[in-house]
Amino acid sequence: MTDIKRMETSARMSQAVVHGDTVYLSGQVSNQPAGDVKGQTAAILTQIDGLLSQCGSDKTRILSATIYLADVSTFDQMNESWEAWAAPGALPARTTIEAKLASPEYLVEITVIAAA
Amino acid sequence: MTDIKRMETSARMSQAVVHGDTVYLSGQVSNQPAGDVKGQTAAILTQIDGLLSQCGSDKTRILSATIYLADVSTFDQMNESWEAWAAPGALPARTTIEAKLASPEYLVEITVIAAA
Amino acid sequence: MTDIKRMETSARMSQAVVHGDTVYLSGQVSNQPAGDVKGQTAAILTQIDGLLSQCGSDKTRILSATIYLADVSTFDQMNESWEAWAAPGALPARTTIEAKLASPEYLVEITVIAAA
Repeated sequence: MTDIKRMETSARMSQAVVHGDTVYLSGQVSNQPAGDVKGQTAAILTQIDGLLSQCGSDKTRILSATIYLADVSTFDQMNESWEAWAAPGALPARTTIEAKLASPEYLVEITVIAAA
Repeated sequence: MTDIKRMETSARMSQAVVHGDTVYLSGQVSNQPAGDVKGQTAAILTQIDGLLSQCGSDKTRILSATIYLADVSTFDQMNESWEAWAAPGALPARTTIEAKLASPEYLVEITVIAAA
Repeated sequence: MTDIKRMETSARMSQAVVHGDTVYLSGQVSNQPAGDVKGQTAAILTQIDGLLSQCGSDKTRILSATIYLADVSTFDQMNESWEAWAAPGALPARTTIEAKLASPEYLVEITVIAAA
């Protein structure tokens, strides 16, 4: 039975769960929701860097990302921050859809699976 | 080549697929869709318990959960049933978004990846 | 540290990422978006066959599929193509929701995890 490690656990979820050499992150919304889509995306990607680091992983080892935009017409703004951050040569599989998020100030949410 | 096991297969999908020590469940909607979000969530979580049990897993070994709410303003009602059911100290990564589901009587759907 | 292989990498994502014996595909939309839901679904499933083949996998080894429909009332049209394509006895876990996609001509998008 492969060991499971959990990071930053609240009453409802863990922000990161490591199973063997696979890392599952909770959907990340910006801790600074005052910003626009570009700013929120940049903040989320920094949060993801921090969580992956705790799990012995990093952005070059992301396997898949699911991106939820409150308004899909902001796709290009999200991509500006994404492309500035992403590691060329180590890009994950990705899916982007529009979805209403848990609170109206959240404009983008990103869920990641990575390799430890 | 790692073995794949499938449970409760219909013409379109299997309700559970086990690959090595990872379990993928189909999105679960309530078999009792007459209820409200709290009731449907509780019914779904019981269905998940049953499927995980067939796969040699249980709720303490869930790695990630994606929760789709037909109306995201019911977030707190979903969480009431979730928190009553979830195993403290063994909480998965989680993402919650609003999404229109396959049939209007379904108010919530939950997709889970777990460790066998 | 398990090796990661990436196929068809652009500036934003890889269409396929292989980690050990697990394959993650990017959300696939139809390369022939002129068609209806049935036609777009068939085109997407052919694209998935091609990507899985590059990864040493095939449709009998799909573990989970997430299907996004721009209009969930087209559920039956999507299923016509799905059932004509799917491998009986080897069906994945599946989740289907409605979601607005990146461009209005896309009526369906499918994201797959498979075994290599």
